[in-house]
Order: sequence, then C-alpha cells, then structure tokens
Amino acid sequence: MAKKQDPVSRVRDALRVTKDVTLPAPGSSPVGPEKKLKAEKKFDNAGERLSALQEALYAEGAGGGGRSVLLVLQGMDTSGKGGTVGHVLGLVNPMGVRYAGFKKPTAAERRHHFLWRVRRQLPSPGLIGVFDRSHYEDILVPRVQKLVPAAEWRKRYAEINAFERELADEGTTVVKVFLHISPEEQLKRLTARLRRPEKRWKFDPSDLEARAAWDAYQAAYADVLRRTSTAAAPWYVVPADRKWYRNWAVAELLIETIAEMAPKFPEPGYDVDAELAKLAAVGVGG
Amino acid sequence: MAKKQDPVSRVRDALRVTKDVTLPAPGSSPVGPEKKLKAEKKFDNAGERLSALQEALYAEGAGGGGRSVLLVLQGMDTSGKGGTVGHVLGLVNPMGVRYAGFKKPTAAERRHHFLWRVRRQLPSPGLIGVFDRSHYEDILVPRVQKLVPAAEWRKRYAEINAFERELADEGTTVVKVFLHISPEEQLKRLTARLRRPEKRWKFDPSDLEARAAWDAYQAAYADVLRRTSTAAAPWYVVPADRKWYRNWAVAELLIETIAEMAPKFPEPGYDVDAELAKLAAVGVGG
Repeated sequence: MAKKQDPVSRVRDALRVTKDVTLPAPGSSPVGPEKKLKAEKKFDNAGERLSALQEALYAEGAGGGGRSVLLVLQGMDTSGKGGTVGHVLGLVNPMGVRYAGFKKPTAAERRHHFLWRVRRQLPSPGLIGVFDRSHYEDILVPRVQKLVPAAEWRKRYAEINAFERELADEGTTVVKVFLHISPEEQLKRLTARLRRPEKRWKFDPSDLEARAAWDAYQAAYADVLRRTSTAAAPWYVVPADRKWYRNWAVAELLIETIAEMAPKFPEPGYDVDAELAKLAAVGVGG
Repeated sequence: MAKKQDPVSRVRDALRVTKDVTLPAPGSSPVGPEKKLKAEKKFDNAGERLSALQEALYAEGAGGGGRSVLLVLQGMDTSGKGGTVGHVLGLVNPMGVRYAGFKKPTAAERRHHFLWRVRRQLPSPGLIGVFDRSHYEDILVPRVQKLVPAAEWRKRYAEINAFERELADEGTTVVKVFLHISPEEQLKRLTARLRRPEKRWKFDPSDLEARAAWDAYQAAYADVLRRTSTAAAPWYVVPADRKWYRNWAVAELLIETIAEMAPKFPEPGYDVDAELAKLAAVGVGG
C-alpha cells in the first residue's frame, strides 16, 4: 500500500484496528521504539511538534476556522487514561485542551438520550477535546452488566457511527484509542493503588467486579472495535502495559492526525504595514 | 507582622495589593529571584510541588470535597495571560484545569447580567479554574470606552465583591492576578506580533485603541485593585515585563494558596485489607 510509505500515517497505519480485530500484545511495540530510553527521548521531542501543531489549530479556530480534534480514550481500569491525559495533553497549552471525564451516568443524565451528555462536551473550533471514557461505555457496561435488553445497546452501534460521521462532517477529527493492558498488569496496578495511601481514592470496590468480568469486557470491546472503526472515526489499539510506549504512541497518533489536517495560521484581516506604522505613531496616553 | 515570617505566604504578602495601590515596577523583583537563570531553576522545581498539590485537591474533590481554586488573570494586551496559562498551568495534569477565556460579550451574552457567563465557567470541586480576562472587563472597558453611564459600571464593584464573597463561602479560593507590564514592553511585544507571520492572528487593530488609552486603563485598574481587593478575594500585582519572573511568581502564588488550603487525599470508603484479599482471590473471567 502506498499509504504505508507516508511518514505522516506510519503509527496510525500500524495501530489502526484491522478487519479481524487482531490486537497486538499489551506489552509489544508494533511500531516505534522497543526500549524505554529511546521512547522517552523521542517523546521529549514530540512535545515541541505537538505544541506547534496545536497552536496552529488554535490560531485557525481563532481566525474563524471550524475544525477541531476529539481524542476518545477507552480502556479497562488502570489502563492509563488519566496518565495519558497528564503526559500527552500536558505537552500543550491548557488553553487548547478541553477535557471531559464520563462517569456512571447520573439519574438526570439517564433521563436523556445517551449521546446528550456527550454532545455538551464537544470541543469548540480550534481545540483538542479529550474524552476520558465516552459514549462507548453506554454499550460496554449495559452489555456486560445486562442492564438493558440486548436490542437496546445493539442499536447504539449505528447511532454512534452516525454521530461520529456527523462530527467528521462538521470538522471534528475523531481519534479513538483503546488502551490495551493485560490482566497481569492490571493486577499489579490495582495492588499498587490499594497499597499507596495517596492512590487509594482512585480505587473503587466495583473495579473488582469489572475485573472478574474481564473476558466479557474484552469480547464487548472486540465487537465495539469491529463495528465502530469507520473511515470517519477509526479506532487505534495502543499496547499500554508499558507507560512509556503508551505515551509515545498516543502523542504520535495526535501528531500524525493534526499534521494531516495541516491547520493554517489565519491571514491577518488588516494591513500589517499600516498597523506597524500606526503602532510607531500612537502615543501612550488616555 | 507575624505573617511575614510564614513561608507559606511570602510571595502573596509581597505582591498583595496595598491600601494605596502602589504598584511595583513592571521589570522589578519585589520578592524572589532577580536573575533569569535562578528563576528558571526555581520554576523547574515548582512543577513538582504544584502538581502534588493539584493532585491532592483533585483527589479531595473526587472524594466529595467541595473546594476549588479560581485564578483570575487580568492585564493589558500582551501582558502574558496566555503564556502564563501555558507555562504555569501547563505544569499540572490538564484533567485538573478548567480554562475559560472571556472575549467581548456576544449579543446573546449582553442580554444577561454581566456575571451570567462568568458563573457558567466556574470550576467544579477539585479543579483549578483559570479565567483569561474576566468579569473585571465589565468595569474596565465600559468605563474607558464610555459605553454605559458611569453609575452602571460603578455599581459593579459591589456586585463583584458580593459574588466573590459568595465563591469563597462556597469553597472556591479566588486568586486574582494583575499582570503588570510597561508601555515600552508592550510596544516591543506588539511589534513582534505584527512582524512574525505566525503571531499575527493574536493582533487586532483595536489593540492600538486600547494602547492609546493606556493612562485611562491604568487609572481604571487602580480603582479596580483598590475597590475589589478584599480579604475573601485579594489582588496580587505581578511585574510582568520579564516572562521568567511572571511565570515564577504566578506559580508560587498558586503553590502558596493551595498549600494553605492543605487539601487532603480522601480516606477510602472501603476496607483496604479486605479489598487486597479479594483482589488476590478474584479470577479473571467473564
């Protein structure tokens, strides 16, 4: 494929969900660095590239452009959604980031369509939106916990695909990332959460119920990836047992995505030379 | 004053607005480092301290605590509001930051009370909110541009003081920062904005009108600082001609403020040992 040679989509091509949803191993490097030191070095460099692209996107939005990016983060408990936000989105100016976390819907939220609360958190033009969990929870959880009849969560695949198609048409580039960890790594991380007093607030006893239903969640994820990885809004699977690989990969996915969008600094709506002349002439007074 | 000896409020005490509103010189160091290298070294160290405090505040909020912080940034064009957000708030996880920029009110916003749009952007519990310009513009601009009768903007001092008192009572610690630059430094920065193509989008011809009314804005700021620096929501004046001093000072103001709040990681609402035992016993299945 010609696209494979295009450096702009190297990581996206390697991590995009394939038709048969074969997941890379959670501790593997399907693309990019295999060693921590190298990944961290490359990641340091990513900060500057991502910042420059984000600033151009922001400027384009300020100049009247309508485009934005939406990063959707999904994964089992402890897969590193919050850590990804801190490390990767932490590389750019917080002015340009709109974060939204989706917890178990409240009673008020449940009275609305499941996409209602999601639409309220979409990024404005020029911004990078980040969803920490998302509308995908409205398929995964009801399915595994058998909260509603199967017909109800099943119809959500098509509703989500239509919704994400609509976002793409409006100028929002959707990047969906499944942070893929192993049950062995989760065991280590949950144990660490319980042992470290300043991490205990992140643990909830219901995390163990989700862990006990590991295979059911993996099957539900496989169907989500297969049925909702579309041309308009593809899924990427990021091996996430190693945090340095996860950070590197998500940063590269964002960089490739925004580089392809090629946001442009807006042309000034004024005469630069005339304003420079005025600036030299204007007195400071009041 | 005993408070002067308290290291927790050293920078706040030095930069807090005094009764007679004597402003420090825009290029001075009323407290802290006088040299760039030293300031940058101290600033590097601030990242870790601010992150740790922010994480505790966030955790406290997740555990049901109701407290938050609101950083209000005001200053003339090019005083570095956006740069402060990038450098200082960029030190912490974007999950914990809620940014809101306030531009010239839209027609829809003008149909509401001036505090309406501000209330909608207040930080939720556990978050650090940042206002890039704020409700203070609703005194400054109408006054200098003579947009409404003086009686109208004058009554806003009391309305703002009542509003900020209400925020404090609800658990939001308000930190108001005036980024103080000189007209000479602004001239340099506006010139740079016009000369560099990727910075031109930040310039608006109306910036020159505000510059021409420099003294009127300074007088309006002096009254704002005098009349709205309250015990509940004090103003700090940060000399901002030197970006490294500005970044250091705002970071320290936030650190001192959150350190004094002393946010606490919540106690777990479950039995840690019992959960550790369950975790060891739970199988991974589905």
